[in-house]
This record gives sequence, C-alpha cells and structure tokens, in this order.
Amino acid sequence: MSLRENGTAGGDASDAALTRDAFLDGRVMIRQPRQGYRAATDPVFLAAAVPARAGQSVLELGCGVGVASLCLAARVPGLALTGVELQPDYAALARRNAGENGAAFEVIEADLTALPADLRARSFDHVIANPPYYAPHDPPAANPGRDRALREATPLALWLDVALRRCRDGGHVSVIHLAERLPELLAGFAGRASVTVLPLAARAGRAPRRVILRARKGGRSPFRLLAPLVVHEGASHPGDGEHFTPEVRAVMRAAAALPFEGG
Amino acid sequence: MSLRENGTAGGDASDAALTRDAFLDGRVMIRQPRQGYRAATDPVFLAAAVPARAGQSVLELGCGVGVASLCLAARVPGLALTGVELQPDYAALARRNAGENGAAFEVIEADLTALPADLRARSFDHVIANPPYYAPHDPPAANPGRDRALREATPLALWLDVALRRCRDGGHVSVIHLAERLPELLAGFAGRASVTVLPLAARAGRAPRRVILRARKGGRSPFRLLAPLVVHEGASHPGDGEHFTPEVRAVMRAAAALPFEGG
Repeated sequence: MSLRENGTAGGDASDAALTRDAFLDGRVMIRQPRQGYRAATDPVFLAAAVPARAGQSVLELGCGVGVASLCLAARVPGLALTGVELQPDYAALARRNAGENGAAFEVIEADLTALPADLRARSFDHVIANPPYYAPHDPPAANPGRDRALREATPLALWLDVALRRCRDGGHVSVIHLAERLPELLAGFAGRASVTVLPLAARAGRAPRRVILRARKGGRSPFRLLAPLVVHEGASHPGDGEHFTPEVRAVMRAAAALPFEGG
Repeated sequence: MSLRENGTAGGDASDAALTRDAFLDGRVMIRQPRQGYRAATDPVFLAAAVPARAGQSVLELGCGVGVASLCLAARVPGLALTGVELQPDYAALARRNAGENGAAFEVIEADLTALPADLRARSFDHVIANPPYYAPHDPPAANPGRDRALREATPLALWLDVALRRCRDGGHVSVIHLAERLPELLAGFAGRASVTVLPLAARAGRAPRRVILRARKGGRSPFRLLAPLVVHEGASHPGDGEHFTPEVRAVMRAAAALPFEGG
C-alpha cells in the first residue's frame, strides 16, 4: 500500500536500514526499519476511526514509528498529539517522522505500565492504540524489534485500562485488533464506556479478521455492531494490485474518516 | 413467514384464541395464542444453528410453544428433546404441539432459576435458548403473556450460566439474541467455551440486529466472528412479500442448517 523510496538516498549511513514509505497518497512520509515490524493498513484504519476535531488532544499508546498519529494529524489539522513508545529506536524514528511531516507530535519513551507521573496527571480527548496481536505463547518473529512490536508482553486488558484512565469522561478510545480478541476487548470496556464495533473483512462475505472499536468513556448507550467494512473488491486477490473498495480507497488515499454511524 | 389457519376450524372452544401456523413450509404446525407473544423467524434461525446429530439430547430453556425445538426435531430426526417453560399456558401448548407434530419433546413447567432436581442431575448434548430481548426497565407490552415472554425477569447472565451447567463437556450451547447484548453474551461464555458468532442483518450493508452464538463447552479455540447472514434481498422492503435471500429461504422453507463454518 506504500510507495517505497530508497532509504539510502540523501540519508546518513544508518538510513540504509530504513525505508521511506508513503501513506495517504504521500500526505504522510514515514521512515521505518527495512527489517522488523512494518506498518501497513492497520494504523491507517485506526487513524480514520478517531472522531477528533481541531484543537483536541490525542494520546497514542504504543505508537511505533508514528504512522497512526501522523495519519490522524494529516486528516484533522490542529490536534495536539502525544505518543508513548517502549522501544527507543521506534520512538526516535517517530520523533524524526513527526519533524519531517511538520506535525505537533510529542513522543515519550516509556512502558505503558509505568507512565511518567506528568503523563499520568493528564487526560486526553482521544486515546488510540494498535496493541500487539500475538500472545506470549505464539512462536517468536525472527527480528527482535518486530517480535516486540507484535508480541503481547503487556496483557491486552492492561492496554485498555491505561487507555480508559488517560481518556477524559466523554472522550473516545479507539482500538484496532484481531476479531478473535473481541471478547477481551468488550470485557475491557464493560460498564465503563459505550462501544461501537466496525469489523473489517478482506472480501465481501468473508469472516472479518480485524475489528475497530470506538468507545465513549462513561457512555451508557447500547453496544452497536456495524456491518463489516469490506477492504478489497472481488472474490480473490488479483495479483499484486490493491483493488480496494471505494470506501477503503477513500480512507487509504484521500484520508477519509471511517463511517461509524451506519445502519 | 407463516401460513395461518383459522384457529376455530376443527378445534374446541378455547382454540378460538389460537392460530395454527406453518413453519418450515408446513413441516411443523404450531398452535399459539392469537394475542400475545408470537413466534416469527428467530426460533427457526435458532433451530437451524444447532449442530445436532441423530440420537443426541437437546434442552431448550424458555421453549414457549415449542417452535425452536420442533423445528430442530423436523430437521434432525432421532433427537431426544426437553423443554423448560415458566408459563403454564405456553407449556401446555408446547406439549400439544409436540403431540400434533409427532415429536419426542418432553416439556417441563419450571422456572429456569429453580429447575427440578432430576433435571439438574442431567446433562445434554445441546442446550438452546431464545431469551427475552427486553430489560426490566423497558415499557411493558400490552399483553401479559407477551410481556413475560419478551421481558427479562431473569438476567441474561443467569440464562447462560444455566445453559452451560446443563450442557455436557464438549457439547454446544446455541443462543439467539439482540446484537446489542453481545458484550454480555460473550462475558457469559468467557473462559468456559469456544464461541462463534453469526450476525443476522436485515439487508446487505445494514448493521446486524440479531446474533446467533454457538458455544462449545470447555473449548479453547479462538473466538470467531462470521460474516453477517443477510436475511432479505434488496435495499428496502418491497410490500408484504418475504424476499428472503437464498440462504435464508433454505433455512425457512427447506429446514436447512445455518452455515457456521464459513470463511
């Protein structure tokens, strides 16, 4: 989904280990490790799900190299964005990406289970997260950075608890994760928020593999399950083309917001 | 969805308050009150979701006049079916319907929170339920029987707990309910069963209003969210026709099983 430039062109020596990839049709350019965890469509979907308005504050837990926050900044101008990232090399890249994209994105290197006191004293209009997808008992990835980004060292319930704590009353927590973790995701918000779930299905009629949850802290509305958003056109993957559906093309290319009010 | 006969034709005096309705294209004929709670498509969907095989035992909690159990008996021959129903008039009708349909369906008049000791000593291959959809604080229905059938006097969590207790290890619990209750439904099965959810959407692209849960007691498989089953063809309701999709027509007319294994 991204246009990749040669990481060595115009960069310093360490840039040889990086690529520079285009998101949102080039509105956002991201440097990320050539090897290891690489952002694809999930953080773009996450950014598209956040009901943020100009002037609001956003905290991203586990921001990696900053794709979700920087895509959100590109869609909604005038946000004050903060990211927390455990791994120093990803945090450094997130800061560099913020600077190169001209975004107001403060990156804090910290474990989300031990946030600095000044951050614990703050609350945000929006908290967003794309937590690791794989449980501690799954086989490790070959690359240590990739493994740490994908593996769930911190339990999912704790991610959700920290997200809710750092969100103001009436604010929103937005999370993208595997559909198979939906029971834990809903349990984390039970009694604490109104929740809407948008499933993401690779093809029409396929079981959704991802879900995006939008939770309004302190809300008392009934749970809402939306119709799945279908990502790709057609019944099978035609070669190496994208063939996004029009709704998803608008998200990926034109920085459109995701429809969370449907049906 | 049902072909209605004149309740007075060939019946006794009290039958004037009843209708006789056809389910599964007439394979099952059901007497039910003309006024009050009336079975429609939900118990037929529930019956179609149960992975029962000949020779197995089935317990239905809150069986009403017996539509779900008798539709299941029509689809899978050789089942031993037991129903529990709190309201005496519904329980009596369920027995009568069982006799008229020639089904092995024992109906026990009991509160599911106080099941008879001999029933509490039994376990079943399948437990099924279509619990009341509305919470105690919702406005009452005009008809007392209808109100009791729809209103949730017993908390949903307790329905699920009783269902799991009466199910054998490795057996299945199947439930149909409102999609907005999915968080409570999943919480009820958490750590106790493998769960698959089939959402039911009135139209393609609409938010699903119903969900069918199939839980395997003691299972350790990941949660599965299936693609919604679309009930009606087209974008709006064309007059008084059914216009079921082919998959749903097969369930409603030909007693087909619901596809719970899809992609």
